[in-house]
Amino acid sequence: MTDLAIGMIGTKFMGRAHANAWTQATRFFDPPITPVLHTVAGRDAAATDAFAARWGWQHATTDVAALVRDPAIGLVDICTPNDVHAEAAIGALEAGTHVACEKPLADTLAHAAEMTAAAQRAAARGVRTFVWFSYRRVPAIALARALVRSGRLGAIRHVRAVYLSQWGIGADDVWRFDAAVAGSGALGDIAAHIVDAVQFVTGEQITRIAGSLMRTYVPSHTVDDAVLFLAELDGGATASFEATRFATGHHNAHGFEIHGEHGALSFRFDQMGRLAYHDATAERAVRGWTTIEVCDGDAGHPWVGAWWPPGHPIGYEHTFTHQAADILDALGGRPDDALVAPMPDFAEALQVQAVLEAVSTATTRRAAVDVAEITESCVADS
Amino acid sequence: MTDLAIGMIGTKFMGRAHANAWTQATRFFDPPITPVLHTVAGRDAAATDAFAARWGWQHATTDVAALVRDPAIGLVDICTPNDVHAEAAIGALEAGTHVACEKPLADTLAHAAEMTAAAQRAAARGVRTFVWFSYRRVPAIALARALVRSGRLGAIRHVRAVYLSQWGIGADDVWRFDAAVAGSGALGDIAAHIVDAVQFVTGEQITRIAGSLMRTYVPSHTVDDAVLFLAELDGGATASFEATRFATGHHNAHGFEIHGEHGALSFRFDQMGRLAYHDATAERAVRGWTTIEVCDGDAGHPWVGAWWPPGHPIGYEHTFTHQAADILDALGGRPDDALVAPMPDFAEALQVQAVLEAVSTATTRRAAVDVAEITESCVADS
Amino acid sequence: MTDLAIGMIGTKFMGRAHANAWTQATRFFDPPITPVLHTVAGRDAAATDAFAARWGWQHATTDVAALVRDPAIGLVDICTPNDVHAEAAIGALEAGTHVACEKPLADTLAHAAEMTAAAQRAAARGVRTFVWFSYRRVPAIALARALVRSGRLGAIRHVRAVYLSQWGIGADDVWRFDAAVAGSGALGDIAAHIVDAVQFVTGEQITRIAGSLMRTYVPSHTVDDAVLFLAELDGGATASFEATRFATGHHNAHGFEIHGEHGALSFRFDQMGRLAYHDATAERAVRGWTTIEVCDGDAGHPWVGAWWPPGHPIGYEHTFTHQAADILDALGGRPDDALVAPMPDFAEALQVQAVLEAVSTATTRRAAVDVAEITESCVADS
Amino acid sequence: MTDLAIGMIGTKFMGRAHANAWTQATRFFDPPITPVLHTVAGRDAAATDAFAARWGWQHATTDVAALVRDPAIGLVDICTPNDVHAEAAIGALEAGTHVACEKPLADTLAHAAEMTAAAQRAAARGVRTFVWFSYRRVPAIALARALVRSGRLGAIRHVRAVYLSQWGIGADDVWRFDAAVAGSGALGDIAAHIVDAVQFVTGEQITRIAGSLMRTYVPSHTVDDAVLFLAELDGGATASFEATRFATGHHNAHGFEIHGEHGALSFRFDQMGRLAYHDATAERAVRGWTTIEVCDGDAGHPWVGAWWPPGHPIGYEHTFTHQAADILDALGGRPDDALVAPMPDFAEALQVQAVLEAVSTATTRRAAVDVAEITESCVADS
Repeated sequence: MTDLAIGMIGTKFMGRAHANAWTQATRFFDPPITPVLHTVAGRDAAATDAFAARWGWQHATTDVAALVRDPAIGLVDICTPNDVHAEAAIGALEAGTHVACEKPLADTLAHAAEMTAAAQRAAARGVRTFVWFSYRRVPAIALARALVRSGRLGAIRHVRAVYLSQWGIGADDVWRFDAAVAGSGALGDIAAHIVDAVQFVTGEQITRIAGSLMRTYVPSHTVDDAVLFLAELDGGATASFEATRFATGHHNAHGFEIHGEHGALSFRFDQMGRLAYHDATAERAVRGWTTIEVCDGDAGHPWVGAWWPPGHPIGYEHTFTHQAADILDALGGRPDDALVAPMPDFAEALQVQAVLEAVSTATTRRAAVDVAEITESCVADS
Repeated sequence: MTDLAIGMIGTKFMGRAHANAWTQATRFFDPPITPVLHTVAGRDAAATDAFAARWGWQHATTDVAALVRDPAIGLVDICTPNDVHAEAAIGALEAGTHVACEKPLADTLAHAAEMTAAAQRAAARGVRTFVWFSYRRVPAIALARALVRSGRLGAIRHVRAVYLSQWGIGADDVWRFDAAVAGSGALGDIAAHIVDAVQFVTGEQITRIAGSLMRTYVPSHTVDDAVLFLAELDGGATASFEATRFATGHHNAHGFEIHGEHGALSFRFDQMGRLAYHDATAERAVRGWTTIEVCDGDAGHPWVGAWWPPGHPIGYEHTFTHQAADILDALGGRPDDALVAPMPDFAEALQVQAVLEAVSTATTRRAAVDVAEITESCVADS
Repeated sequence: MTDLAIGMIGTKFMGRAHANAWTQATRFFDPPITPVLHTVAGRDAAATDAFAARWGWQHATTDVAALVRDPAIGLVDICTPNDVHAEAAIGALEAGTHVACEKPLADTLAHAAEMTAAAQRAAARGVRTFVWFSYRRVPAIALARALVRSGRLGAIRHVRAVYLSQWGIGADDVWRFDAAVAGSGALGDIAAHIVDAVQFVTGEQITRIAGSLMRTYVPSHTVDDAVLFLAELDGGATASFEATRFATGHHNAHGFEIHGEHGALSFRFDQMGRLAYHDATAERAVRGWTTIEVCDGDAGHPWVGAWWPPGHPIGYEHTFTHQAADILDALGGRPDDALVAPMPDFAEALQVQAVLEAVSTATTRRAAVDVAEITESCVADS
Repeated sequence: MTDLAIGMIGTKFMGRAHANAWTQATRFFDPPITPVLHTVAGRDAAATDAFAARWGWQHATTDVAALVRDPAIGLVDICTPNDVHAEAAIGALEAGTHVACEKPLADTLAHAAEMTAAAQRAAARGVRTFVWFSYRRVPAIALARALVRSGRLGAIRHVRAVYLSQWGIGADDVWRFDAAVAGSGALGDIAAHIVDAVQFVTGEQITRIAGSLMRTYVPSHTVDDAVLFLAELDGGATASFEATRFATGHHNAHGFEIHGEHGALSFRFDQMGRLAYHDATAERAVRGWTTIEVCDGDAGHPWVGAWWPPGHPIGYEHTFTHQAADILDALGGRPDDALVAPMPDFAEALQVQAVLEAVSTATTRRAAVDVAEITESCVADS
């Protein structure tokens, strides 16, 4: 059993989620590589020390640059605000260290492109990149993807995805409202999740933004508080997206509905253990929407068998544990096809970021924008 | 096309529901016999006249006895408080007139037995009896029965049925709270419905009351406000029942859950257009509860095809229209087996009343009671 | 009590719904004017005769032109395919007869504008027009409007509206798929309903179409099978709309979610008796979404008190009965403000049609379109 | 900071849940005492060693008797089949060691009484006992209790509780089906949970079993597969209970509905993050059932603030972590009143076991049984 020394940057919400994931991964899964909580970095020395003590990190530091290039570190895990991603990731990649980075990939498309270029260079040396689109590892979402891939839905005609939250209402000023740090608001923070989820589940890519709307409700915010857009998928389906931090009444209600020729699916994260499936080929008298409790390892529901017997719900942080375990599997040599869900790398996250940039552009132009236009400009730039 | 002259007694809640049913039956269905709104009887002459004018009754009267024996009347429809049922029904039956009676059949088991005896005598002359257990004609309930009969559930293991309402809370004094008029409270008024529904859907009969509890919350009430009991079905299943007029938060939430070897069903009237079905033989990965919108005539869902295209809900009063149309079909010679749902007659309603009597007896004795004991005593008495 | 002779054109789905509404209006409501089922017109003489007999119409005809100008008729009720609306409505208005017309107002915006001009001329003679946006009279939708108007939601930030049906899948060819008869597909047939509902509930108007997508899935269809668009409301909110006849799994699932500063609302027609309300000013520990069963006349829920006690659901056709009763009230002199819901006239329906035209234009241009541009062109043309 | 050495017996389902709880308690909470994973005991030496390695236990043993009396151990945590509870617990208590025991307290009422007597003796020496009724620490259940205690429901009239699972169907033979090991079946295993939950949430005790039914569906089972009973609470309410391992379609659907004078509550574990609350004192027009997502630490929802921001669900095992943290708090001197939920000790678990015994007795007698009769006999015996 090989060890992998983790160097993690960030000790807040995501830092806690990742620390927990690296810890739990070996308790509930059997990865071929054992993560070692080597060093954690944060801005405040005392807080970082306390964090390290609580979670069992061997070292604590405020020197991110040193951590990134520390030869003892096998994987740098980036849980910081978006404007720090590029420098940390590129530094680590140049040092030949694997990188797992929070989403969105970067504050700007240009940074994301630079990071992806660095990832491509490092790949030649066997260095891997991962992006924490952790919602892919909600069992119900991975099951949705499997059902689509099995052909149960046939050609997809309609997708609608929402990320409805209300935490922007009355929130104190945080970095996520500051364009200089976050790059964008609802767009990069939460629309990114549903763009990835839709492409992940359908296996199709967004090719055109047909129209969009953005809103900023609080004068001090320099980013979008809400964004809506219509899109076309490369299989011909229509897709609508709405991501907002001002949806009064919803804490974290993201999800999707997908209608195909032969069936349909519906998911919402505030009932994360459930997937609704409509089988349009079922006997008509008993046809309807079937609520699947995705909690049954013996039924082949992904990941859940590692936790508890059927009917014992898992929660939010488990998705990070799934991804941590899968990263360790991937680094241990398991081919991506053998994973329950493919693991997004920097290139895939860059494509998501190009879609988001197309949304911004469509908003400014008040007209439709082809994603290819953005992708080409981004390749041209980098 | 034959005409059938209806003589209806009662102009309140049930009177309106029945008048509407006789009117709508020929608009949306094609019964072989046409009902004619011949005479309506009520206690208050002016109110009865107004009712007759509004609904198109040819005659209005306050003389119930005359109506009952009027040779011009082909069917007497009884929508009165329970203490009037026996006299009206027996009078009509002796006059050779068909009778359709509201549930419960009577205020007391003895009266119910007398009515049933009269019905048996009249049957020899071709006279029919019907009881308005109208919830049998909720399409979702009839579909539930069809699914059980088709064998999809296998042997039934568990049934739980509730009738949860809150209208007893703060209600002004009405006849339904008076033992002298109603006979019983929640027991005859609403438990009767779920006893009939459970026996109708499962095709099994209640054989034993294993235990019971009754409560009266308002001192001026001389009947039970709530009743709970456990029962055994003749197929071996357990069944629990709760009927209450004091379930804060529920207007009219009656329904059932049934678990069999191979599947399960769940229904609640506050979502009357839906039936939830669990197929335990389905592929395990996508197994769950399927919500069937029972609104699709082309799928064979009973009655709904006569109304509107799929997806256009029907309401409460439609169940009476279904029963009116089915009574007309039955009188026109259609065999009971050909009806979507069998039509309860006095004998069947007497059996329900014996079950309710067994519940009362079990409450008094604080011990289990076999329904057969009640049935035998009742036969002995009559 | 005055009588009003109804002349109705059309005997299919809408003809049945309207005939039922005129019949039931006086049974359950007490309008100041009594509708008389005077004449019904249809294309097939035998079918029209049978329809008249079933529903109690005094006369049946195939001569629509004669009906429209028959001086014995007080109100012409138009339930035909869209391409017939203009000629019938303008004829009746010129004859000084009130008109109630099904939606959408016409097959084309030009026809809708001509009808509205005729309505304005006739208004000088006291002639009224009505449009059957009957979903306004779903009690839950009218309650939603009342809650918004009371200020409970504060400024509205987000609206999303869908009309998800599947009846287009595998449907035989009908006039609704033919552009020459229908004018448009999902746009005029079902998007019209949710455009009206959103404007009705919010009290705000759509000012700009920010982007749109249309799809036709069946080659023989000459209209849109699905349409999506993003819009801005004049109060500043974002709104998204999706209307499709190809949403596998949904019979008739139209509805909306509305998020305001202080609360939110959610409605879907497949649970037409319910409205979900989030009160963001409630005590935080018990804050959530409250499911209101809109079935309680004593609570002030609109219309339902006329039917049955709380907890006894009404259905689809009841909304037409509500509108029929309200039309009779309006003609009896009750001011529009006194109605539970304002009654849409031709001018209001023309505005909806202009919004739909803006959606078509935005689709063609692949760019945003101001509704004012369409409205002005339409005034210029007429 | 004091350390507390844990000695845990059992390495299966509950062993994993408890090991996780002791580990996570200090990561997400700040207890005044730090648990040390000192020794784990199991029957199979190799499996126990592997378990210890995976979870970080310092020692592994197969010698339960030695563990129980090891002076280095501060708390013995019992996660074994029921027939082992008494010997281990009494041994530890006699050694002056705190005990945390899985439910039900014992295989028989006599054993439970002996354990409680031992606990009372040890209490004089400052030794504490705890029972893992961990569902008390589902945030929604604790919130339900707080709402009842605040008086929002007024006097309670009706309670219905179910524990619906299907794992008995087709399950391989395990100790839970063997009377010699488990003592009882559904009764002690799952009915125990809902008896405790109902008494915990209402603050009332069950005084009488009014009737009961038990079923064993599989011939090889020597315990009950299902049990139903009706009960009276000491505040006057009716209560119904059903616990079954043969409820086709339900993995782990336990919960309750409670109706009081002024409000009502509804909870089901398959949506463990939600509590439905009906406030019967709310303005009537908007009255209904409010679904509270119990995920908001800032709202005072218990425990959840220690985990993640609002809207990020926790899962099954978190309830054990809550109890572990609360045990550490209790041992650190925090008075029980200061805990969000009181901590059940052996005496409280004995009362639950007496209720279960009364159910068995009522089943045998086919008659009502007062719980006091059982309690007195049990005191007499011990």
